[in-house]
Amino acid sequence: MRNKLPNLVRSQQLSRELLEELFTLSEKIRKNESKYSTSLKGKMMDIIFYESSTRTRKSFEVAMKMLGGQATVTENAKEFSSAAKGETLEDTVRVIEAYSDIIVLRHPDLGSSELASKLVDIPVINAGDGKGQHPTQALLDVYTIWKEFGKVDGLRVAMIGDLANGRTVRSLAYLSAKFNKMELTFVSPPNLNIGNDIKSYLIEHNLPFTEENDFNSVIPEVDVIYMTRIQKERMSPEDYNKSKGKYILNQKNLKLVRKDARILHPLPHVEEISLPITIEENDPRVAYFRQAENGLYTRMALLHHLLA
Amino acid sequence: MRNKLPNLVRSQQLSRELLEELFTLSEKIRKNESKYSTSLKGKMMDIIFYESSTRTRKSFEVAMKMLGGQATVTENAKEFSSAAKGETLEDTVRVIEAYSDIIVLRHPDLGSSELASKLVDIPVINAGDGKGQHPTQALLDVYTIWKEFGKVDGLRVAMIGDLANGRTVRSLAYLSAKFNKMELTFVSPPNLNIGNDIKSYLIEHNLPFTEENDFNSVIPEVDVIYMTRIQKERMSPEDYNKSKGKYILNQKNLKLVRKDARILHPLPHVEEISLPITIEENDPRVAYFRQAENGLYTRMALLHHLLA
Amino acid sequence: MRNKLPNLVRSQQLSRELLEELFTLSEKIRKNESKYSTSLKGKMMDIIFYESSTRTRKSFEVAMKMLGGQATVTENAKEFSSAAKGETLEDTVRVIEAYSDIIVLRHPDLGSSELASKLVDIPVINAGDGKGQHPTQALLDVYTIWKEFGKVDGLRVAMIGDLANGRTVRSLAYLSAKFNKMELTFVSPPNLNIGNDIKSYLIEHNLPFTEENDFNSVIPEVDVIYMTRIQKERMSPEDYNKSKGKYILNQKNLKLVRKDARILHPLPHVEEISLPITIEENDPRVAYFRQAENGLYTRMALLHHLLA
Repeated sequence: MRNKLPNLVRSQQLSRELLEELFTLSEKIRKNESKYSTSLKGKMMDIIFYESSTRTRKSFEVAMKMLGGQATVTENAKEFSSAAKGETLEDTVRVIEAYSDIIVLRHPDLGSSELASKLVDIPVINAGDGKGQHPTQALLDVYTIWKEFGKVDGLRVAMIGDLANGRTVRSLAYLSAKFNKMELTFVSPPNLNIGNDIKSYLIEHNLPFTEENDFNSVIPEVDVIYMTRIQKERMSPEDYNKSKGKYILNQKNLKLVRKDARILHPLPHVEEISLPITIEENDPRVAYFRQAENGLYTRMALLHHLLA
Repeated sequence: MRNKLPNLVRSQQLSRELLEELFTLSEKIRKNESKYSTSLKGKMMDIIFYESSTRTRKSFEVAMKMLGGQATVTENAKEFSSAAKGETLEDTVRVIEAYSDIIVLRHPDLGSSELASKLVDIPVINAGDGKGQHPTQALLDVYTIWKEFGKVDGLRVAMIGDLANGRTVRSLAYLSAKFNKMELTFVSPPNLNIGNDIKSYLIEHNLPFTEENDFNSVIPEVDVIYMTRIQKERMSPEDYNKSKGKYILNQKNLKLVRKDARILHPLPHVEEISLPITIEENDPRVAYFRQAENGLYTRMALLHHLLA
Repeated sequence: MRNKLPNLVRSQQLSRELLEELFTLSEKIRKNESKYSTSLKGKMMDIIFYESSTRTRKSFEVAMKMLGGQATVTENAKEFSSAAKGETLEDTVRVIEAYSDIIVLRHPDLGSSELASKLVDIPVINAGDGKGQHPTQALLDVYTIWKEFGKVDGLRVAMIGDLANGRTVRSLAYLSAKFNKMELTFVSPPNLNIGNDIKSYLIEHNLPFTEENDFNSVIPEVDVIYMTRIQKERMSPEDYNKSKGKYILNQKNLKLVRKDARILHPLPHVEEISLPITIEENDPRVAYFRQAENGLYTRMALLHHLLA
């Protein structure tokens, strides 16, 4: 296969060509799961998470098992791995390498997955490295956009909320630069702006963006409203109280959203989305539960790409 | 199949006809495990526990795997799922639905499993909802009685201990009403009486019951002695100290127990059963380890019923 | 099979004959994994850990799965099993027996695995019982020595560090007595000397040993340098500060180590080994990552021996 990846630690590794290959493969797997049910037979995944997660951890585990592979899981590596005895991450991954064919790592330190990938000869997937990246989230986000709109080129995307700490928006911004004529709008409290490294990257790659403050004036103008949670656990209580509840999508301002727009969220959400379940279940613009489901198929496609 | 259940959140859902169907199926599975070893191939169970457990969690997981299915487990969802980031249970189960074929939920809130079952299109099994119910425990309890006595009708059952907080006795009382001519005796400290809702239910269903205080006068009279633990974690220290150690089955009062009676306990037990291991292993009246084993076969039968 | 073990709770149970049988089987499995990939089909392992671990827990789980078996894991049994509700270990293992074919137990109490093995009719593997033993670690340690040197007889082994609390050195000392003409040197801070029970055992079995204090004078003299971590979690802060950093293997004193010697460590290590990654990866004397990998194959061999 051309473009064969050795690992996935940064979303920039995903070329447009490879993205389209993975989208197509995701669709195939979704339509004919049983055809792929033994493609990773005999392969062992090691899932090691130093921070909590439901959907990322589970979707990797289920993806691996649905492809016929196996998985061992450490859901709380901070306390219940040898890290509690003072072992370095470097040593931990070198030991894990002896027992497994692929490592899925979530760790609070920026660059931890990249570091790990340099020490071992098996693929490492970055499932979140602190304020760094979360490239499989970006993969499933772009796949969701592609599937909902039939295209990605030319769409206007607003990213809203905690853009300073949200690694999913960082990864998604990097991936957006792979497509043509997209327009990004960043909407965040002043203390939680998108990083300058992202802005420099977008300028360098000729992707136009604006920064806005007024939520209600932005949401009627865009195709994709990408909401994010204010990450309480990554800031001071003062910063949290300043930002909490500033941008809330509710029944009232949902009326401002275009009829053919889509609302995405990496989940979990808290108060930033406040819609009744009946709307969540019936309004086609609410795409975040479909987005979560897409995580399974895109991760199956990625695992197939890396290991099959 | 007639009586096919969509889920199991309350023991009242189990009709007598279905109970007997499940008892028979449990026996078949026990006698010929290998015949069922692929009946749930390709199915994925999501076990999500917000409260600690050994036997319930493990027996569901092992039951699923022995039927050829797979399972993902979150043993401490309170801290290591997205609940820690503020996600609602509603959102969590809707996301899990995308990755699995059945959900087994333990959650501290009364009614949590019923709520979950209304939000997803896959079966939800209530593995304990706070002070509410634990219907698979009741299923295995009644199966144990049926297996030990060859019948359930007409038996006299004493339930002893923390009847206010013990969800297993609540579920068992509901199931008892499905059988004929049973007699229930509730023995509890005054501050831990059985709930009025249960009493109303029994009156409505013509199942005679009495409430007693004197343990030693009750145990010679009954066929089944169902002991329960004082649930320290669900009461104030004062209430606990008032109740702790009030009813203890030991070598001395074991002599009062009928020769053909059976002692059950949902386990774990603490001081309320104080018998030496030699008696536990050799006295046929001690049934609680067989009862625990029955949990595996009845859960295999239930999973087969719900999913096969 | 002659020498068939019923369980493995103390390393003394491993005869020399059986050790060589297990070494040969480990080699066979390493060379032809697929031949053994269904040898434990239908078998269920229960891994229950009351203390944290990465490599032991994972390597048992992966070993079981690579042999076609299945496993259920409780990585934090202290808080998330029924122990949290006051259940005794005796009851816990008797319940687990109903659901599984083998138990792998790590528990802080000395003798806990031996106790468990007496209560159940399925094999129990001691994966660490407090300051007691860790016999599969000793098995993989001796296998590593055998594989690195082509023999065990006649080798000089220095064990360095926390010899009072290190259960791996205790188990390894017991196993050393099974071989001929070995010489042991114990190097430890005065407050962390090897136990008198071990010394008596070695005297009784005619295995010569010395106790030394000066690390740099010992390391040029021996074939195997077995480093261990000062187990902070098992001593007072004063004792820890007295011992911490006393024996450190670094680039400087590595020059004193014989060219054909090997450095072992049960891992995780902290400051007692302070070598750059380039040396760890390229110096053939650094054997501890190979040693960790050997854990997988020796555990596969042991499980095959106990269950196949």
